[in-house]
Amino acid sequence: MTTRAYNFCAGPAALPEEVLKQAQAELLDWQGRGLSVMEMSHRSDEFVAIAETAEQDLRDLMQVPDNYKVLFVQGGASQQFAQIPLNFLPEDGVADYVDTGIWSKKAIDEARRFGNINVAASARAQDYFAIPGQNDWQLSKGAAYLHYCTNETIGGLQFDWVPQTGDVPLITDMSSDILSRPVDVSQFGMIYAGAQKNIGPSGLVVVIVREDLLGRARSSCPTMLDYKVAADNGSMFNTPACFSWYLSGLVFKWLKAQGGVEAMARVNHEKQRRLYEYIDSSELYNNPVSRSARSWMNVPFTLADAALDKVFLSGAEERRLLNLKGHRSVGGMRASIYNAVPLEAIDALIDYMKAFEKEHG
Amino acid sequence: MTTRAYNFCAGPAALPEEVLKQAQAELLDWQGRGLSVMEMSHRSDEFVAIAETAEQDLRDLMQVPDNYKVLFVQGGASQQFAQIPLNFLPEDGVADYVDTGIWSKKAIDEARRFGNINVAASARAQDYFAIPGQNDWQLSKGAAYLHYCTNETIGGLQFDWVPQTGDVPLITDMSSDILSRPVDVSQFGMIYAGAQKNIGPSGLVVVIVREDLLGRARSSCPTMLDYKVAADNGSMFNTPACFSWYLSGLVFKWLKAQGGVEAMARVNHEKQRRLYEYIDSSELYNNPVSRSARSWMNVPFTLADAALDKVFLSGAEERRLLNLKGHRSVGGMRASIYNAVPLEAIDALIDYMKAFEKEHG
Repeated sequence: MTTRAYNFCAGPAALPEEVLKQAQAELLDWQGRGLSVMEMSHRSDEFVAIAETAEQDLRDLMQVPDNYKVLFVQGGASQQFAQIPLNFLPEDGVADYVDTGIWSKKAIDEARRFGNINVAASARAQDYFAIPGQNDWQLSKGAAYLHYCTNETIGGLQFDWVPQTGDVPLITDMSSDILSRPVDVSQFGMIYAGAQKNIGPSGLVVVIVREDLLGRARSSCPTMLDYKVAADNGSMFNTPACFSWYLSGLVFKWLKAQGGVEAMARVNHEKQRRLYEYIDSSELYNNPVSRSARSWMNVPFTLADAALDKVFLSGAEERRLLNLKGHRSVGGMRASIYNAVPLEAIDALIDYMKAFEKEHG
Repeated sequence: MTTRAYNFCAGPAALPEEVLKQAQAELLDWQGRGLSVMEMSHRSDEFVAIAETAEQDLRDLMQVPDNYKVLFVQGGASQQFAQIPLNFLPEDGVADYVDTGIWSKKAIDEARRFGNINVAASARAQDYFAIPGQNDWQLSKGAAYLHYCTNETIGGLQFDWVPQTGDVPLITDMSSDILSRPVDVSQFGMIYAGAQKNIGPSGLVVVIVREDLLGRARSSCPTMLDYKVAADNGSMFNTPACFSWYLSGLVFKWLKAQGGVEAMARVNHEKQRRLYEYIDSSELYNNPVSRSARSWMNVPFTLADAALDKVFLSGAEERRLLNLKGHRSVGGMRASIYNAVPLEAIDALIDYMKAFEKEHG
């Protein structure tokens, strides 16, 4: 009998139950070697195989071209916000950033500490409920790169298109929608993602970076923040986050077993379709994001009467529907429905929302 | 029946079996909440309690004074090597460093990228087999701090005394001997330690820093590398390495149950005493480190005939004595005997070494 709840947490987020079960089974004794993955030298044959298999499975899942390096590093996306200008923005250069919400804004604020940043577009005029079309963007001449966030975890705003910037490398924060649907990696200079939403446990960041962009770090860039150092050392310049790497590898295997990213995209499409459709049909619930920019991964919604929020949340917890409280900066509710959240969880959530509306609507 | 081997890995290193068993038992369902620790928001009441309890237990174990902050951060000691000058070395200042081996040398090399570094003392003249006494150190006037490494994991060289530097803050890399014996924290400006030896899984660094040293970071210091930002945000400026933090907390509880650091020191004293005594009595094995500087945690030793190394290692593996191969820069063998390696493991190792000597000596 499972005691597992449905977990709608924005991150660290739900992991596939099969993955946790395998990790549990081999936690004290990995494949008969007499020790845990957590107790292995990162330079042992065993762990190197775990690490390389994880990388290859991710490459397979995302069809990463051979001229891209895949890195497994630490510090979260927030550390990337500094690493990106330190690696790619010359001191006298300019970089373009698109502001679509809290996370892209954080990237902008940190980058400004290291150079000249042009906000090429902002969703502020639309209250962050829609993404400005590229025709309205003010791109810089000779920008070192353009940075944007594919999916704003807090606002629930997601690009369903890829900006076109010619020779200017696209750098994108895919923390909350990587592996949720197919992406053409070759359109990007660099993709990065904190693991704790669609990949694995927190404390790990996946970076997919085009090789020709490496080797440009400023002399003031700490060694550990230089992507080339990580790339040249197979992400083992020092001890990596071994257990998170291992567990992410189990998630990649699970994704392959589900049919890969295309299969996940079909399920994810259906999950968000059912949830938004119900929200739009209801009198009690509301999602303000324009339809074409609605996130498949994070669905914020408000109740017509905010006084009902607490009642809604405690009723949800009774039904084992966890972590539906919206981000403190937005209020209301948020259902994060990443890959590891099954369709049944969405149906259970909708059932509860319907029953709650009937009683309180 | 346990299938666990004796694990002498230098890091990631052995963890207490009781800790792994508890983590295993609650891996899918932490205390009946229906989700794994890996799936909890770091801002949830549950995880905040886990994090705060871990911090308090570490404070208890090390008797950390109230005017010190305890941080749980990422990036390994290698990232600290940059953070230290970025936080504490003014651009026109000088910092003193002591070179006792590979890890303190790495700290020196990275710090030199950010300012004026004086190597106040080096063990090079003694082939890194002894630590120069403080009378022979060349300290700078007005140094911003003095950095040293209490225990060189690779060379097996450990300070059994604390340098006296008056008002100059002592900063020390305690990655491989933290919690192995009592330390008077008040003698230090900052102590840091990668978790993967004596604390928990890799991907976590514990920093214990005196509050008055915070707030001096350079303007060019990435936000994530500023200790004050970590301190002001309870190490949750962004998502921390939650699972490693949790597991480290279980290790702290285990240490308390063993009787704390004093009790560990008694066991560790006996472990190293038995091993060095046997090595010194043997004709086949040799440890070149001067007795007062021998590490309690990492015992490198060579065989009189290096051609026997492979035979020794494969025989050890047959007896489930794992990871005894010396670091590639040193060769020979190394037994890392951290807190989680029990006295029985040392006895089993000595038994094997004796049998091997009888056959091959």
